[in-house]
Amino acid sequence: MEKYVYKFGNGTADGHSGMKDLLGGKGANLAEMARIGIPLPPGFTITTDVCKLFQQKGRDAIHDMIFDQALDGLHFIQDVMGTDFGSSENPCLLSVRSGAKQSMPGMMDTVLDIGMNDEAVEGLAKLTGKDHFAWDAYRRLIQMYGDVVMKVVDEHGENPYETVLEEQKRKYGKRYDKDLTVDQLKELVQLYKETTEKYAGKPFPQNPKDQIWGAIMAVFESWNTPRAIHYREIHGISNEGGTAVNVQAMVYGNMGDESASGVAFTRNAATGENVFNGEYLIDAQGEDVVAGIRTPLQITLKASRNWAKFAHVSEKERAEDYPSLEEYMPEIFHQLMDIRQLLEEHFRDMQDVEFTIQEGRLWMLQTRTGKRTGSAMLKIARDMREEGLITDEEALLRLDPEKLNELLHPVFEAGALDKATVIANGLPASPGAATGKIVFFQEDVFTYVERKEPVILVRIETSADDLKGMYAANGILTARGGMTSHAAVVARGLGKCCISGAGALTIDYRNKTMTVGDKVYKEGDYISLNGSTGNVYEGKIDTVEPELTGDFEELMSLADSHARMKVRANADTPDAASVARHFGATGIGLCRTEHMFFEGDRIVAMREMILANNEAGREKALKKLLPMQRFDFEGIFRSMKGYPVTIRLLDPPLHEFIPFELEEQTEVAKSLNVPVEEITRKAEQLREVNPMLGHRGCRLGNTFPEITRMQTRAILEAALNISAEGLEVTPEIMVPLVGDYKELKMQREIILNEAKVVFEEKHASIKFSIGTMIEVPRAAITADKIARYADFFSFGTNDLTQMTFGFSRDDMGTFVPEYLKKGLLKESPFNVLDNEGVGYLVKTAVDLGLKTNKELHLGICGEHGGDPSSIEFCDRTGLDYVSCSPFRVPIARLAAAQANLKHSKKELQDA
Amino acid sequence: MEKYVYKFGNGTADGHSGMKDLLGGKGANLAEMARIGIPLPPGFTITTDVCKLFQQKGRDAIHDMIFDQALDGLHFIQDVMGTDFGSSENPCLLSVRSGAKQSMPGMMDTVLDIGMNDEAVEGLAKLTGKDHFAWDAYRRLIQMYGDVVMKVVDEHGENPYETVLEEQKRKYGKRYDKDLTVDQLKELVQLYKETTEKYAGKPFPQNPKDQIWGAIMAVFESWNTPRAIHYREIHGISNEGGTAVNVQAMVYGNMGDESASGVAFTRNAATGENVFNGEYLIDAQGEDVVAGIRTPLQITLKASRNWAKFAHVSEKERAEDYPSLEEYMPEIFHQLMDIRQLLEEHFRDMQDVEFTIQEGRLWMLQTRTGKRTGSAMLKIARDMREEGLITDEEALLRLDPEKLNELLHPVFEAGALDKATVIANGLPASPGAATGKIVFFQEDVFTYVERKEPVILVRIETSADDLKGMYAANGILTARGGMTSHAAVVARGLGKCCISGAGALTIDYRNKTMTVGDKVYKEGDYISLNGSTGNVYEGKIDTVEPELTGDFEELMSLADSHARMKVRANADTPDAASVARHFGATGIGLCRTEHMFFEGDRIVAMREMILANNEAGREKALKKLLPMQRFDFEGIFRSMKGYPVTIRLLDPPLHEFIPFELEEQTEVAKSLNVPVEEITRKAEQLREVNPMLGHRGCRLGNTFPEITRMQTRAILEAALNISAEGLEVTPEIMVPLVGDYKELKMQREIILNEAKVVFEEKHASIKFSIGTMIEVPRAAITADKIARYADFFSFGTNDLTQMTFGFSRDDMGTFVPEYLKKGLLKESPFNVLDNEGVGYLVKTAVDLGLKTNKELHLGICGEHGGDPSSIEFCDRTGLDYVSCSPFRVPIARLAAAQANLKHSKKELQDA
Repeated sequence: MEKYVYKFGNGTADGHSGMKDLLGGKGANLAEMARIGIPLPPGFTITTDVCKLFQQKGRDAIHDMIFDQALDGLHFIQDVMGTDFGSSENPCLLSVRSGAKQSMPGMMDTVLDIGMNDEAVEGLAKLTGKDHFAWDAYRRLIQMYGDVVMKVVDEHGENPYETVLEEQKRKYGKRYDKDLTVDQLKELVQLYKETTEKYAGKPFPQNPKDQIWGAIMAVFESWNTPRAIHYREIHGISNEGGTAVNVQAMVYGNMGDESASGVAFTRNAATGENVFNGEYLIDAQGEDVVAGIRTPLQITLKASRNWAKFAHVSEKERAEDYPSLEEYMPEIFHQLMDIRQLLEEHFRDMQDVEFTIQEGRLWMLQTRTGKRTGSAMLKIARDMREEGLITDEEALLRLDPEKLNELLHPVFEAGALDKATVIANGLPASPGAATGKIVFFQEDVFTYVERKEPVILVRIETSADDLKGMYAANGILTARGGMTSHAAVVARGLGKCCISGAGALTIDYRNKTMTVGDKVYKEGDYISLNGSTGNVYEGKIDTVEPELTGDFEELMSLADSHARMKVRANADTPDAASVARHFGATGIGLCRTEHMFFEGDRIVAMREMILANNEAGREKALKKLLPMQRFDFEGIFRSMKGYPVTIRLLDPPLHEFIPFELEEQTEVAKSLNVPVEEITRKAEQLREVNPMLGHRGCRLGNTFPEITRMQTRAILEAALNISAEGLEVTPEIMVPLVGDYKELKMQREIILNEAKVVFEEKHASIKFSIGTMIEVPRAAITADKIARYADFFSFGTNDLTQMTFGFSRDDMGTFVPEYLKKGLLKESPFNVLDNEGVGYLVKTAVDLGLKTNKELHLGICGEHGGDPSSIEFCDRTGLDYVSCSPFRVPIARLAAAQANLKHSKKELQDA
Repeated sequence: MEKYVYKFGNGTADGHSGMKDLLGGKGANLAEMARIGIPLPPGFTITTDVCKLFQQKGRDAIHDMIFDQALDGLHFIQDVMGTDFGSSENPCLLSVRSGAKQSMPGMMDTVLDIGMNDEAVEGLAKLTGKDHFAWDAYRRLIQMYGDVVMKVVDEHGENPYETVLEEQKRKYGKRYDKDLTVDQLKELVQLYKETTEKYAGKPFPQNPKDQIWGAIMAVFESWNTPRAIHYREIHGISNEGGTAVNVQAMVYGNMGDESASGVAFTRNAATGENVFNGEYLIDAQGEDVVAGIRTPLQITLKASRNWAKFAHVSEKERAEDYPSLEEYMPEIFHQLMDIRQLLEEHFRDMQDVEFTIQEGRLWMLQTRTGKRTGSAMLKIARDMREEGLITDEEALLRLDPEKLNELLHPVFEAGALDKATVIANGLPASPGAATGKIVFFQEDVFTYVERKEPVILVRIETSADDLKGMYAANGILTARGGMTSHAAVVARGLGKCCISGAGALTIDYRNKTMTVGDKVYKEGDYISLNGSTGNVYEGKIDTVEPELTGDFEELMSLADSHARMKVRANADTPDAASVARHFGATGIGLCRTEHMFFEGDRIVAMREMILANNEAGREKALKKLLPMQRFDFEGIFRSMKGYPVTIRLLDPPLHEFIPFELEEQTEVAKSLNVPVEEITRKAEQLREVNPMLGHRGCRLGNTFPEITRMQTRAILEAALNISAEGLEVTPEIMVPLVGDYKELKMQREIILNEAKVVFEEKHASIKFSIGTMIEVPRAAITADKIARYADFFSFGTNDLTQMTFGFSRDDMGTFVPEYLKKGLLKESPFNVLDNEGVGYLVKTAVDLGLKTNKELHLGICGEHGGDPSSIEFCDRTGLDYVSCSPFRVPIARLAAAQANLKHSKKELQDA
């Protein structure tokens, strides 16, 4: 006979944690806990197979099929608990809960206190001597059962029990549910019963067996509610799996002084220290511990004393009113300590547990891997590895790369947010915390910075013109723009806190104010930003600088030794290159040359070039830019000490260098000594409807070859100079926005010709390579032809995503939030690489490229290069390296190691 | 022994026209002419194989290899001509010309008059009694030979012979080369010889055999010059083929009164009439006939008399001074008439021939398929088919679809352009001719039109707001925008003449002037446009309305019977639908609903909807739009009489409906009775950096489902109403800009739900289908999933091209002209579908789509649907129909037939 019911409890179990497909996540874990001797309320799990059969054959068939096995399970619970299901003297109360393989929080149904009826309530009251407790449990059951099983709703589609309960409290002037007296509860039960009959057309079932069957079937039914289906669709969970049903004995922590509920961590979740810790409450249910109405007590004596010191409570008062569990129930405490050891040895990770003490007896309700801070994550992994609990692979695989952010950026001081007021919310564009005075204009930033006052630069949007101000500010806040807006991209590159697209802000540049609702903030007012959450706070909130610990260093080098892919950084300046090196980048995957053109004299020369009407004029202006650009490249080469440096030729449309506002145009005209009309005319001429798809990338270099020539010269002269200093240099010249092989071929010829000229002039030469971004869909599709002219491909997945989806990353705010809400998008494809569409093109390009060029070197330099799940894709697709912003390099190093470990494991399994 | 030399002439030939690979195009044609007994100067062809061996083995090896065969060829020429190569009494003069399989005009080398030297010149002068002729031929040889074979260039890289010639003319005060006297020519020959020795370092070779070998080798060498390679690369010609070399006897039409040169057409190239016609000149070379220095004479007497009437020349004067060839050389004329018949019967098409009469003897130099007007093309095809000369297939395949344009649009009156002044040049955006008064604003257009004055609407760019004005104007001229700008697309849809992107125009709206250079044109001044060439003319030039002949009808229905794909039209109004039906469209492939929103009350309601801040507000405004839209759909359904009508749901970003200029915003505010700030704020809020990639297409319908609901209701209510009139209706609802199946799935659900509601309300239902545009690269890549929710795919290749290339069609002007010039693009991918990139995505989508949905109906509705070469791609890829602007429907019908015929032929060959 097929086994449909798996028992657990009393130190044994039919199932184990490896049976999640059949028992669901919760059922498998309960079985595992029982197996290793954890005391937990006994119960049984009805398998997911039954759920599938339920959908096919209906409830009656299922009833007959599982009846005997379920009855056996029920007897098992009664035996262990010494109670009797349906008895009026010693009733056995049960919970019925859903439990699919993957958790679907809030989606499916639960019924508690099953087994209660008009007789059992009296029996329980007598048995425990707690009338209030018994009647409260009874009224809870009717309410839950009516709602979940009998689908009771009133004529307005509302839950009528809530209405009745509110009415009852109002009638007796009570604030909380628990304030109702026993008589009032009894009256409530009667009202509930009437309500059930009124709306369901039949009475609340008094027979406990009817109750339990009804609850089990309701859980199975709840698998296929529209909202559960929608949830699974959004979260990519299969509809096939089905849910299991867990039936378990009820235990209560609110049965008097010998009862309690608590939560605990097997190690410190904040610091990672190997110290047991947690909180509990006497005569309380689990939810009371976290509800914050009563002050929870500490589990260990040491923690209790620390708490008392902090709370200015005398030792006497503490011992009397706030005793630790260690003191209050020393035996239970020691039992808990043993369980702690058992759990850590078994699960080999820090556990977060829930427990209930019912009249002096300890029941564990749940254990799960405990959440922790970034530094705790590192310390625990390192310690457990040293303790021999886990292997190197396990230590690496269990780290969450994103949590490293906490170690790389400033954070607010502990507790500082407790009284802070959130005034707006935007996109968490660049992590970390920042505080400073509101400043709207770049020029003003410098004034404040000179006075050593911290600044938050607040703009509607930023542009390349604001670069220096962004660099000098503590943080950046914009009213418009997405996760990949200019502000966001640059801020991440600088490792600077940034919140973008805070739509609630109205910024008035003229009056230098920022308005949120009715509240007006002026230049000089303090605000604080949390770039990791997107919260904007009023006032000054102190921050703490991050610190890299030995744990970090050790685990990072462990990661490197397990990674196949290299990690490079996107860095445009010698400073950024140094940061990248510091964080362990082994090369620069993207050096954007245009950022170099925005400072001082450079922008003047750049504008001269743009205004020139012929090649000669452009050449003249480019000659001025040459030494500046060469100087920058020298700095970067020096920082990178021989590691490869991929330099992208000029990419943005030229109009980005000419201001759009007449006022600024007038200034430019003055600085260039030309009539303002000329500037206006040029700006108008360069204006594009869709600049993203316009005259940029190699389209510039192919229409104005002199730009490519100048940049080639700057790169190679710098390389020769640094090489002459005795340092190694590995320059890689990257051609952007290629869509057809002919474009790359022409650029390659221009570069090679210029190289020949430079090498002849200097009587020296140096090895360099020429490659291209793959960022236009057509380039991916025709990569076999392009690869003939490329030494490397670097996937520019930002633009590739824009063009593959037809999404402008600058205009995402208009519909993407709604798309995310409606489940049309699971996440922004600019954050996580879209494997199906964009990834298909990447894979196609890799396959086609290698077909015609076996030596092709492959990397990614889009923002996805810093996203762990995208990095996994890159590893699987065979890329040689990922490149990301300097502050994400550690994350990428870890993610690269994890990707390789998973990949190797999968290969091993497949073999 | 391998055959390397193929002789021709004297009624025989070693080769024939099927040997183009081996003999090149010219050589194979000369052989064919000789075979069928056409008198032509004898000669021989050295094969393309020799060219390949030349590249591998070098000139000496080649010399030995072909020497004997070439000598044999030379003897053949001497025998036929009765001359002697290298003789000083009766010299044999030869031409040496290149001739690859595919013509490469101007790319490769030619040497004439070979065999001339110090003795031969004297001999020829004596023999012919024409000293001037002989010496001129000699100096030409030295110049050509020095340039082509000896690579003579001066210190400045210039051709020194030109300098010497100019100096000689200056010295003797002569204007034309031919004005130099015999003595002056002799002196020139001496100077030329000195020039050759000076720059080449060796003398001009006197030995005719040296001359001919030098020339042959130079032609082979010219195959691999950088410029020839570049030409082949741009034109997609393989480098492997090589060129043949044609050596042929020289003949001269300038040897006195018994000599002449002429050109003729076997039928009338303007009307297609079956009448021989052409022009000739006595004692002249071929180039003189076309040079226009002397008035050419007519070949037939009838044409000569017609000419005289037109030129006001008396019959006497005509017969004496301008005799027809029919009168002047009656025997030669009859010989020509015989040749005409021979050629037509052999080549089965109208021929364009060149001939030379040397001292009473007729030599045919060339025959080729004659160029012709659109109506001549139709008439000739129809006549020849009736004459039994050609089959149906041949008749169809030889038609040039693009030439049908001439029959569908107005043209300028014959000869009217002779004195016209071109004032600017733009893109030939929509064909036809138009004349009218310059008007800058839509409102003014109506004023003129009411006065029955013709108008040309002149704008910097057009927008949807100008639609009515464009409709009322005779033609449209814009200073900005490409072939697929708004003006261009709309004009083609209206069949209205349009020139776009005429960059030389400066348009000043404020003063209502248009300036070109110094010249200012005001509102009310006449201009004329040729939309087929892009020329803008000053003043009024009368146009003639087109007329569709019986030839057209007959060939069109012949085409339909040979086509596999259907042809639909892109039409947004009942009027356009009627035009489409008139031109034979069997359905509407794209009805853009947004154009319906721009008129009168509609734009007001549309703006109300956009300004509404919630769904209720939008619903209210949409209710106003519903009846208007339903009314339009009724009209379209009625026009299409049961043929399918594909209606696309709202596609453009909403900001297109809100003006950008404050002045216009103020007006809008007034009409809506809201503060202008609200309009400005909304416009600002809707503004997008890259609108092409923004909030549009189904992103609108999925964020504002009420829009989809209203449009669905309008379509289905209209369909029910028309159906109730007893007419058949086949509505197809098309969802735009889908990139992921979930987007279509959601839209499909909204549409189906609304349909259910409408059908229930009306107690009636009607069949309709739901499909999607495939216009986002990601949609093509994931088409298998999308096809599950689609009854049809319609490829929106305009947007697909934009995103696949990363080209904004609105911003093409910035770099695409340069790209075309440099050969980086062969043609604009918006005109001709890019098979390799965009086509790959189309093919991918077709394959994936059919995999999951065998019933999927497939079409194209991008502008490529009207381009013959793109239509061929669509046929090959298995699409069911193409859809194009109404005025291109005939072109598409013909192209669809041709594609199918070619495809069937290829399948037959492959089998």
